[in-house]
Amino acid sequence: MNEQLADIKKDFSQWYLDVVYKAELADQSPVRGCIVIRPYGYAIWELIRDRLDTRIKATGHQNASFPLLIPESFLKREAEHVEGFSPELAVVTHAGGKELEEPLVVRPTSETIIHYMFARWLTSWRDLPIKINQWANVVRWEMRTRPFLRTTEFFWQEGHTAHETAAEAEAEARMMLKEYIDLAHEYLAIPVIAGRKSEHEKFPGADLTLTYEALMQDGKALQMGTSHLISQSFARAFNMSFQDRNGQQAYPYLTSWGATTRLVGAVVMTHGDQKGLILPPKIAPIQVVIIPIYKAGTDATVINEALERIKQTLSPWRIHVDAAENLTPGAKFYHWELKGVPLRLEVGPRDIAQGQVVIADRITGKKQVVAHDDLARFVDVSLEEMQTTLLERARQRLSAQWHKVAKLADFAAQLEADNGLYQAGWCGDAACEAILKQHKATTRCLLNEKTLTVCFQCDKASIGDVLIAKAY
Amino acid sequence: MNEQLADIKKDFSQWYLDVVYKAELADQSPVRGCIVIRPYGYAIWELIRDRLDTRIKATGHQNASFPLLIPESFLKREAEHVEGFSPELAVVTHAGGKELEEPLVVRPTSETIIHYMFARWLTSWRDLPIKINQWANVVRWEMRTRPFLRTTEFFWQEGHTAHETAAEAEAEARMMLKEYIDLAHEYLAIPVIAGRKSEHEKFPGADLTLTYEALMQDGKALQMGTSHLISQSFARAFNMSFQDRNGQQAYPYLTSWGATTRLVGAVVMTHGDQKGLILPPKIAPIQVVIIPIYKAGTDATVINEALERIKQTLSPWRIHVDAAENLTPGAKFYHWELKGVPLRLEVGPRDIAQGQVVIADRITGKKQVVAHDDLARFVDVSLEEMQTTLLERARQRLSAQWHKVAKLADFAAQLEADNGLYQAGWCGDAACEAILKQHKATTRCLLNEKTLTVCFQCDKASIGDVLIAKAY
Repeated sequence: MNEQLADIKKDFSQWYLDVVYKAELADQSPVRGCIVIRPYGYAIWELIRDRLDTRIKATGHQNASFPLLIPESFLKREAEHVEGFSPELAVVTHAGGKELEEPLVVRPTSETIIHYMFARWLTSWRDLPIKINQWANVVRWEMRTRPFLRTTEFFWQEGHTAHETAAEAEAEARMMLKEYIDLAHEYLAIPVIAGRKSEHEKFPGADLTLTYEALMQDGKALQMGTSHLISQSFARAFNMSFQDRNGQQAYPYLTSWGATTRLVGAVVMTHGDQKGLILPPKIAPIQVVIIPIYKAGTDATVINEALERIKQTLSPWRIHVDAAENLTPGAKFYHWELKGVPLRLEVGPRDIAQGQVVIADRITGKKQVVAHDDLARFVDVSLEEMQTTLLERARQRLSAQWHKVAKLADFAAQLEADNGLYQAGWCGDAACEAILKQHKATTRCLLNEKTLTVCFQCDKASIGDVLIAKAY
Repeated sequence: MNEQLADIKKDFSQWYLDVVYKAELADQSPVRGCIVIRPYGYAIWELIRDRLDTRIKATGHQNASFPLLIPESFLKREAEHVEGFSPELAVVTHAGGKELEEPLVVRPTSETIIHYMFARWLTSWRDLPIKINQWANVVRWEMRTRPFLRTTEFFWQEGHTAHETAAEAEAEARMMLKEYIDLAHEYLAIPVIAGRKSEHEKFPGADLTLTYEALMQDGKALQMGTSHLISQSFARAFNMSFQDRNGQQAYPYLTSWGATTRLVGAVVMTHGDQKGLILPPKIAPIQVVIIPIYKAGTDATVINEALERIKQTLSPWRIHVDAAENLTPGAKFYHWELKGVPLRLEVGPRDIAQGQVVIADRITGKKQVVAHDDLARFVDVSLEEMQTTLLERARQRLSAQWHKVAKLADFAAQLEADNGLYQAGWCGDAACEAILKQHKATTRCLLNEKTLTVCFQCDKASIGDVLIAKAY
């Protein structure tokens, strides 16, 4: 129990803010809707980013960088795109002491400028595919912000590709969705549900938006990331054509896909408890914290020698020795529990004499005595198990809160009171979808199955199952 | 000889642009003064960045991130700072469809917002030192831009630290300068000269700016990076105080230091030749390019099997096999020379039969026959030697163009005609320094020695040697 934190059961929303700020993942900034990502939070993001960057390169993409500022007219070239993003733009009107002839928008996403450059680079089918990725900051002037989940400025990678055929582009979009899902499962220990967005929910300017959605502990859904087939109207708008294998001018098929700093928020909301953060070992900046227990009358050199031996033994892992002299061991336990470090190792004089250490894990809090000779193996196995346990625990929660339902009238009350995911049939009409707003819910994704025959709202036949939830 | 490129001897400036664009390091963008960094250029930057990031962390700093947009009033809190940066600011005046109450500037550097946050975090001497680094994009509305060397938007890391004592802060600023110099020597193969900037040339708001300067092939100097002791007026402007060890309120001593994408430009201008780029092996995205030579009547599987063996042998290095079918070997040689790949390996049927390959190095162009069994050792030694040769070659150029001189009247003509570095005495007066403008030159740095007794311009005694040059 951490009394600094709001009650996770009664006020999940405040609990989240408390954890983000008190575990020093982020701080509020003086700029509306922007956060400062503090070193501990940034280190988590770096671990996520490095893993994703490795996979993006392994799947044949190359990193590059494109300007932050985009001529306003570029966004207007594609009708749906400008309609989707206009309300959220931050606009540079003055620079170098003068008013600009054409305002520049701070990129909300980079399709327009990247497609402009693709058009410069693309001549023949031999130039395809183009597979580019950019790690960047983007700005969207959001009305309501929450640290990591929705901030005015955020960090992401945005992949942009161009292909000869529609089939190849679709395979690309699906491959990257799969990479994202693997990242969520393997690294973040977050189970997700994949599907496609409805017309209303898709990316402005996409033909198809694939999404993967997770369930937070309060039963609300979180869109984790998306992968799009971009409309060929972008290629047309930017005169992006090439000579195909038959010598004809053709337009390429485009994709884009992105993952953001939101993933850090997803980790907090999926795994945390009343003591604070719980980090999956693979993305924990500190996997083992080592706390020396100096007792009155003990020779400090004995403890320090033991610390050196332990540091040596645990060198394959990310470790931290908390040797601060002005805090009690109890205060340190509390601090590192709040920060979600998977394993805590206590090194006191009596244990050293017996050639052992005490280890507590962050999930159960249970203490175990481990012989020094067995330490490396124990840490290896424990971290592996914790990673699996967190995923399994989240899976059980997901399945417990996933309801198959028939009619909105029957599940509306439960949806409003308890949140959760509701799998239902849908006729595909926007009118039926819009009614969900009255219950503060939306369609999260269309699933690739059809187990219900009638729409949740009207009497028409279902086009396929849809997932309905309140969402962040 | 690459006839696509301007003559490096006659028009170095155009040669530089040709290499940057034709070797596909960067491309022009539709946004004034901004470039697109293409995959090959970005990969060089990633190698520089990763090495620097490792060293920044190893010296006790942590990465974090601060907002891109800064309230305009923040820059005005420190008088010298706002005076230095105002003419270069890009300003967001509208966002979310409305005019902002207070404009936001796109950060030209982040001292102000980072100091604001330091003030929130700093209470006691126990909180010090704070040692933060940020990898970020910044925007400065420059009048004249050149790819990598001076662009409206550029990438950098900016380190910001706060310390209890002036001595500790100065040691920090000097340590990071040393790290930068090591990076230049060890990785970029660029010899540099370290010193401090004059009052006129220092960072707006710094008490002391340390710099390291390199000499380009045309005899012009390039400021590679800087490390500053920041004036305590920043701490005062942002109410950044702490309780010291005696229980008194005190202001911390601050530093900041940065290295930018300019370093990519420095590499091009230091090592390139008439064939194009020459990359030091440590920052070459491709260290060995392998070119199969298919001849009429040869069994392609023989060549492909040999390629597999060679790839296996060379797996510790960054290699690329250029198997494109629509280009001749000659066209490929030309292409990879332009791109500065250190070693080129040719794999033809006759060599395979004899268990050998032909290797050409990018510096001398000389071809050598190497037995397959000796390949790994040969590549290892060659890359090491090329790294050393490039540094040594640049060192010789630096010393050949570094002149010790007495009076401006005596060296002005040579400075104007041939460029080069001129070490002279200086009285320290801004008036004498300002006269250099007439010769398009500036003081690059004050050296830590005094070998000349009188000012280069007036008859007063010298305060120490100064380095004078035309600069980028």
